[in-house]
Amino acid sequence: MAKNVAGPEIERLIQLLARVPGLGPRSARRAALHLIKKKEQVLGPLAEALAAARDSVTVCSTCGNVDTRDPCTICTDPRRDNGTIIIVEDVSDLWALERASAMNCLYHVLGGTLSPLDGIGPDDLNIKSLVERISAGDGAKEIIIAVNATVEGQTTAHYITDQLDGLDVTITRLAHGVPVGGELDYLDEGTLTAALRSRTTL
Amino acid sequence: MAKNVAGPEIERLIQLLARVPGLGPRSARRAALHLIKKKEQVLGPLAEALAAARDSVTVCSTCGNVDTRDPCTICTDPRRDNGTIIIVEDVSDLWALERASAMNCLYHVLGGTLSPLDGIGPDDLNIKSLVERISAGDGAKEIIIAVNATVEGQTTAHYITDQLDGLDVTITRLAHGVPVGGELDYLDEGTLTAALRSRTTL
Repeated sequence: MAKNVAGPEIERLIQLLARVPGLGPRSARRAALHLIKKKEQVLGPLAEALAAARDSVTVCSTCGNVDTRDPCTICTDPRRDNGTIIIVEDVSDLWALERASAMNCLYHVLGGTLSPLDGIGPDDLNIKSLVERISAGDGAKEIIIAVNATVEGQTTAHYITDQLDGLDVTITRLAHGVPVGGELDYLDEGTLTAALRSRTTL
Repeated sequence: MAKNVAGPEIERLIQLLARVPGLGPRSARRAALHLIKKKEQVLGPLAEALAAARDSVTVCSTCGNVDTRDPCTICTDPRRDNGTIIIVEDVSDLWALERASAMNCLYHVLGGTLSPLDGIGPDDLNIKSLVERISAGDGAKEIIIAVNATVEGQTTAHYITDQLDGLDVTITRLAHGVPVGGELDYLDEGTLTAALRSRTTL
């Protein structure tokens, strides 16, 4: 857009909206215009929600989840089974597992995976706090490693298994297999092989 | 997401982000998490930019453009040719024409098109202010009607032409033809017919 069309406030809003994942420069303009038109219904409340998030959201010092309190809602929930801790790479994975509602347990967010090429070593992830958490004997009996099925994820899984060696916990990982609702034709050989190997009796 | 995962501030932020055009419920979660992680670089500045826009953006009482001042930057720009006014449906059309930088003139934003089915009549659009603006003799010699080439747009164009009848202005409309860079094979018959009729000598 030519520089003299709208005030600097609108220009700056468009530039910042373009940095939101899912929006590009073009959709940021469209979004800015929509927000300006819906000033009372959307723009105002969104400004307040962002300010509230900026002021109140923090990272849980126990598990690495983001929440408005520390320790977070999950860590302090007395109805959760503290005998099981699921290790995930990112908060988005924690949210995904919570949406599935399959387990009612605790989590530990690593904040990434080991990646020597990107200069990410064990000290850059929340691995030390995990070992301390389990060594402290807070009741954990099983550790489910739910990192992504990528090379970096598996490397990280092996490293964590080594670090937890000697501690009195069972370490498990997610099952490999055919996604529910998935078609065999579209699956890779690795997944099909894993699904065949782990076949179950009907 | 299960209700007890994150604080109400995060939930509310996700709900509001989902109302931004271009973001859905799923991408709103991803955007919220990204914003929370980039608290200093993106979330804070975005909250401030939205608050600034909420407090300062207004609609130009002359042309209907959105800006932080009234009359807007375009209406008060002394380097613009006030002999030509381009009529557009929406501010986004104004921005698109400004990006093209083809004309250095004034605008008039209708705020929509006539649409009896949706209950939108002449009084719901900025048509009266357009007629007053031109009757007042502010120097306009040519009115370019740049509404969309839809049925509603063309109906609106005809209505405006009727309203401006008797005033001392030339009324023009955008040319129909082949989009620059477009392939004939993908164009509809109406566009091709119009492009043939308006053919020019090389």
